[in-house]
Formats: sequence, structure tokens, C-alpha cells
Amino acid sequence: MAKLVVLYKTPKDTAAFDAYYASTHIPIAKKIPGLRAYEVSSGPVPSPAGDSGIHLVATLTFDNVGAIQAAFASPEGQAAAADVGKFASGGVDMLMFETKDI
Amino acid sequence: MAKLVVLYKTPKDTAAFDAYYASTHIPIAKKIPGLRAYEVSSGPVPSPAGDSGIHLVATLTFDNVGAIQAAFASPEGQAAAADVGKFASGGVDMLMFETKDI
Repeated sequence: MAKLVVLYKTPKDTAAFDAYYASTHIPIAKKIPGLRAYEVSSGPVPSPAGDSGIHLVATLTFDNVGAIQAAFASPEGQAAAADVGKFASGGVDMLMFETKDI
Repeated sequence: MAKLVVLYKTPKDTAAFDAYYASTHIPIAKKIPGLRAYEVSSGPVPSPAGDSGIHLVATLTFDNVGAIQAAFASPEGQAAAADVGKFASGGVDMLMFETKDI
């Protein structure tokens, strides 16, 4: 399997972010082709030392990194990526990688 | 469930990092009490735009954030945290959060 981890930095208005993410972004992101699982953080995202600067973590699971790349290239993936720009006012980092269980 | 995501920034010597992580750190980290699943990235960890500065992502699953906090306080958790200092020459960020499936 492979993961796309989306790290949303703390936005200017967290309540507006949360409302938009739940009502608008999730329905758009769920249409991404090849998406096998979709998990989001619930509540705060601290580091052990305290504030991490991250507000929300979304983890999207695909069969492999090629499927993530195909998803980004698809119309549904492009729509989801474009939508991120509408609410991620604190910025966003994305990581993609194959995974193995230990 | 809750996740502890450990983001290892690119170390000075990636081959030495990989060898130490596999042979020494994983056996230490697997002893952490309350650990339900342990997943690591396999291969590169790019962002969609290119290099992310992250070399390896470890995702540890626990029942809840309280279990992560208890794990950090345990002798096994303290041993794992101390071991990180021995090989994470690029630095490390950790995030902990409750998760929900979408």
C-alpha cells in the first residue's frame, strides 16, 4: 500500500477551516480514483513537546505510489488539489510513500 | 484509534540511518507498551512538488492519545525516545492525534 499524508498548518480561522473541510472538501476528496481509505485527525495535533503548528492531518491510502500519481493527474484529483487552495490558509505539506508493516 | 507520526528529516548519512533503524531502532520501538500497529515508509518520501526533506515516516497506532502519553512515560517508550537521538541526525518531528475514518 501507499499513503498520501496531507499536513495542514494552522489556518487563520480554524472554525471556518473545519466547517469547510467537513462540508465541502471531504465530498470532493472522496471522489479521487483509487482511494482505498481516508482518515483524518480528530481534535488537536500536538507534538510531544507542545504545539506542532499542524491543525489537521489527512491520510489517504492507495495501492501504490503510481496510483497516487494517477490520482493527482485525474480530473477528480485536480479538483481536490484546487479545492485545497480555497481553505488551507495556513499552508499545506504533502508526503507520499510506499508503506510496510513492521 | 490514535496515531503517532514520526517524520525523520533527511539525515547526514542515509545508508547508516537505514541500517541503524532496521537493525536497532525497530526492535526497541516494538517493545513500546500499547502499540497496536507500526508502519514505516519504504523508499523515498517525496512531496508532489519534489523533495520533501523527509527521509522516513513511521506511523505508530495506539488505542487513543492517552495510550500514546502513557507509552512515552513508560521505560520502553523512554528507551525508544532516547534511541532516536542516536541516529536521527537530520532531526525529527512527531505528531500525535486521534483519528477517524471518513
